[in-house]
Amino acid sequence: MNILIVLAHPERQSLNGALVDIAARELGSLGHEVRLSDLYRMEWKATVDRADFPHQTTGEPFNVAASSAQAYKSGELTEDVKEEQEKLLWADAVIFQFPLWWFSAPAILKGWIERVFSAGFAYGTGKSYGDGSMKGKRAMLSVTIGGTEHDYAARGICGPIEDLLFPLTHGTLFYTGFATLPSFLVYNADRLEDYGEGFPAVVDRFRERLATLETTPPIAFRSAASGDYDPKTRELRPGLEEAHAHGFNLHIKKLS
Amino acid sequence: MNILIVLAHPERQSLNGALVDIAARELGSLGHEVRLSDLYRMEWKATVDRADFPHQTTGEPFNVAASSAQAYKSGELTEDVKEEQEKLLWADAVIFQFPLWWFSAPAILKGWIERVFSAGFAYGTGKSYGDGSMKGKRAMLSVTIGGTEHDYAARGICGPIEDLLFPLTHGTLFYTGFATLPSFLVYNADRLEDYGEGFPAVVDRFRERLATLETTPPIAFRSAASGDYDPKTRELRPGLEEAHAHGFNLHIKKLS
Repeated sequence: MNILIVLAHPERQSLNGALVDIAARELGSLGHEVRLSDLYRMEWKATVDRADFPHQTTGEPFNVAASSAQAYKSGELTEDVKEEQEKLLWADAVIFQFPLWWFSAPAILKGWIERVFSAGFAYGTGKSYGDGSMKGKRAMLSVTIGGTEHDYAARGICGPIEDLLFPLTHGTLFYTGFATLPSFLVYNADRLEDYGEGFPAVVDRFRERLATLETTPPIAFRSAASGDYDPKTRELRPGLEEAHAHGFNLHIKKLS
Repeated sequence: MNILIVLAHPERQSLNGALVDIAARELGSLGHEVRLSDLYRMEWKATVDRADFPHQTTGEPFNVAASSAQAYKSGELTEDVKEEQEKLLWADAVIFQFPLWWFSAPAILKGWIERVFSAGFAYGTGKSYGDGSMKGKRAMLSVTIGGTEHDYAARGICGPIEDLLFPLTHGTLFYTGFATLPSFLVYNADRLEDYGEGFPAVVDRFRERLATLETTPPIAFRSAASGDYDPKTRELRPGLEEAHAHGFNLHIKKLS
């Protein structure tokens, strides 16, 4: 497979950096092609603004969706955005490696999504939730977390980790057509040796996930085209959910 | 009250810009002091990196939490961050005005949180979830949303809006001590006149929320100090939740 790794961490000599090195080596040894977008090293522009559309000189108020749709259609997105879109189209699978900051992705990664997932390319295409330009590709979040597994358990004080990541796994990745794999999670990331599972155990778990990247069943999110949603309201039809499903879980066909 | 408005939208001539103008006028006429952080106009630096800590010249790998704790303690955070922290300390209430992009806040606002909510100031203080430096202050998200109310209903395809905003309302605001009010939401934001409720109705609803900013009951999140959580695991003790609570809702004492 062709595999793109997107790294969002300011320090290459970090757990996140080490995991990316392991992934590149492991995936390479399995015969895959690997490319890396190291957002901090690339000094990725995190903010979408009018400067992203230098060819547009209208006096109209700036509208991100309208401008990005027009620039995508006319091939006038900025080169940095085009390069990332080209990498996405090249990839069969994408791994996002980042630390959980304030219960979501670092701003630099959020800004990569806002600029690269442009209108016409990733949204505003009439296709969403299981369909779209990323259809046929796989994606996996690989997330380091300062807190404990208890903090993010079903009753943990921070909320369940799968729910905290839902805006990414479902709203961003599945929305654009990716098959989203269960996330790879490392807890106690700042104190792995003293309180966590230890680095060697993390590496073992990660290598297992990398080796099964092609075969791991994705999260069974319901597609927009499945017929599970009322076509008028886009609400889930009554009675389809599993007995213990609730909230975000309603949108998963079969809970593990 | 002293009220800080944080605006994250690239175009001042927009619905978000109009809501900020209405808020400033309305709150002023009610006798409040208002200050504005217009992040795009300020060209806010969205990415936390080593450049944020110019006084630190160690050859050590860069660690955001360690560097920001040290810089906060020694008064060596950058001026832009210090100014925002000063505004937060001044404020009795903070309104965050932004469009929902990819089911969360724009990157520029996420980056404002990552840089301004520094270690020692907003986390790593031994206090969290209902306690901390923002204790006694109120906060409200005011969010414009492209989709319909159905999309974000309990069974809507995007997931319930309160759950999508939980990393902000609970994980960011309540975590640092704010009393978080129910969010002000505008659906069909790009087609208010044709499909939405229309601008005058939005203004009426918003003015009502502004007028009751001091008195609206906050979301009844459980505080870390409430005794509701097992002190060892920080998981919610069994049997405390309301009958229909689940997922993130477990952390709300009384569901509305």
